[in-house]
Amino acid sequence: MADVRRVKAIVEYDGTAYQGFQIQANGPTIQGALEKALQAVTQSSTRIVGAGRTDAGVHARGQVIHCDITWAGCLADLERAWNAMLPADIAVHDLTQVSQDFHARFTASSREYRYSIYRGAVRSPLVARFSHHVPGPLDIEAMAVAARSLIGQHDFSAFGRPPYGTDAVRTVHRAAFKPEGNMLYFDIEADAFLRHMVRSIVGTLLLVGRGTLSPQDFTNILLAGDPNHPVALVPSAGLCLMRVNYPCG
Amino acid sequence: MADVRRVKAIVEYDGTAYQGFQIQANGPTIQGALEKALQAVTQSSTRIVGAGRTDAGVHARGQVIHCDITWAGCLADLERAWNAMLPADIAVHDLTQVSQDFHARFTASSREYRYSIYRGAVRSPLVARFSHHVPGPLDIEAMAVAARSLIGQHDFSAFGRPPYGTDAVRTVHRAAFKPEGNMLYFDIEADAFLRHMVRSIVGTLLLVGRGTLSPQDFTNILLAGDPNHPVALVPSAGLCLMRVNYPCG
Repeated sequence: MADVRRVKAIVEYDGTAYQGFQIQANGPTIQGALEKALQAVTQSSTRIVGAGRTDAGVHARGQVIHCDITWAGCLADLERAWNAMLPADIAVHDLTQVSQDFHARFTASSREYRYSIYRGAVRSPLVARFSHHVPGPLDIEAMAVAARSLIGQHDFSAFGRPPYGTDAVRTVHRAAFKPEGNMLYFDIEADAFLRHMVRSIVGTLLLVGRGTLSPQDFTNILLAGDPNHPVALVPSAGLCLMRVNYPCG
Repeated sequence: MADVRRVKAIVEYDGTAYQGFQIQANGPTIQGALEKALQAVTQSSTRIVGAGRTDAGVHARGQVIHCDITWAGCLADLERAWNAMLPADIAVHDLTQVSQDFHARFTASSREYRYSIYRGAVRSPLVARFSHHVPGPLDIEAMAVAARSLIGQHDFSAFGRPPYGTDAVRTVHRAAFKPEGNMLYFDIEADAFLRHMVRSIVGTLLLVGRGTLSPQDFTNILLAGDPNHPVALVPSAGLCLMRVNYPCG
């Protein structure tokens, strides 16, 4: 009998068909699909822990998970078998054995998200699944100025709710726009995120881009930290969890 | 009452859910969806003619269509109304009025297709919808040498069947591989294509990439033009009609 070992893995998924990462009463979830496929491979029930609880419809290129499994073979065989049992819109890769100290969520030092905006005049079916369509002019320079005010440690109450009993203070390391042809990417890295935080930040930055708010208005909303501030939430299709970082490797 | 005018348009679609471009007895088609949406806008039945009859599951960035419509307003209004009635996986753009001499299919001088191959070790859910997963080593240089033999006028009977009563002679203007990170694109332009031609060319080039065939074997298959040659067809998800060219504009 093989010993139990803790395994870390990268998970990539097209979140369109899922009710988010975390198992819940209604609808399919990424965690549920991962656990079901793993059970089919190992013949035992295993709990999967993810670094980020992505919302319904949100995608991931580099979600990180860990689980404790009993597996006598090599991890490359487990990866092949697991992927063979997973649906086409989820895949695991880079399985590695880690120490029991590693926890996908609690030991993560930062998360990187990308929000993709498609700026073509007409909606594009080839990118619609992974982007939000925003036709018309946008003042990217004003949006970039506003985005810079996010960097640093702030109470982000204006852009999302913290878990019950905790505060909304987070540290943003990076927040910048990157235009590429008809696409406009918003890349943001923080130690952790509140629920809906990236989508409400992007929604509010788009109000700056359209001239409804000035960059200073945006900064004032951020600094006021009013949890009852009206939220301009953009759709989840544009959001992707790109990468989760850990202090060591 | 407005006059009838001939309108040309570019159509972009995610072909995953469709049984190809052309209307047929079973299953949804791009042409069917375009005609249904247009009928909802104009309240009259209009026949759509497409430049390329893409197969089931094949995508298009730049399919070209024409139709004869009665529309009193400007074409920008028609474009908006038409897109509003179309499903999310189909969009029309760049509507222009053209002369009655213009025919999307018969006056096209060339078509450009791209076949996308994903070369990562593990399948990627974020690109799976628009690519074919080919893990493992490929001799790209040998594939490029083989691809060059396609250029020029040939009888392409080895790679597809012509419509009944016509020949399989086509002229390939361009056929080249373009690696970009984990993606390998195969771009091919010809005056016209036989049914399944791009997918069977790519399937056979992959046999060259794996060393099963030499570039000279590939050239021999092409020149032999045997319509009963076994076909190595790659999946339609990787194929996209990029552009259709016309002698004038």
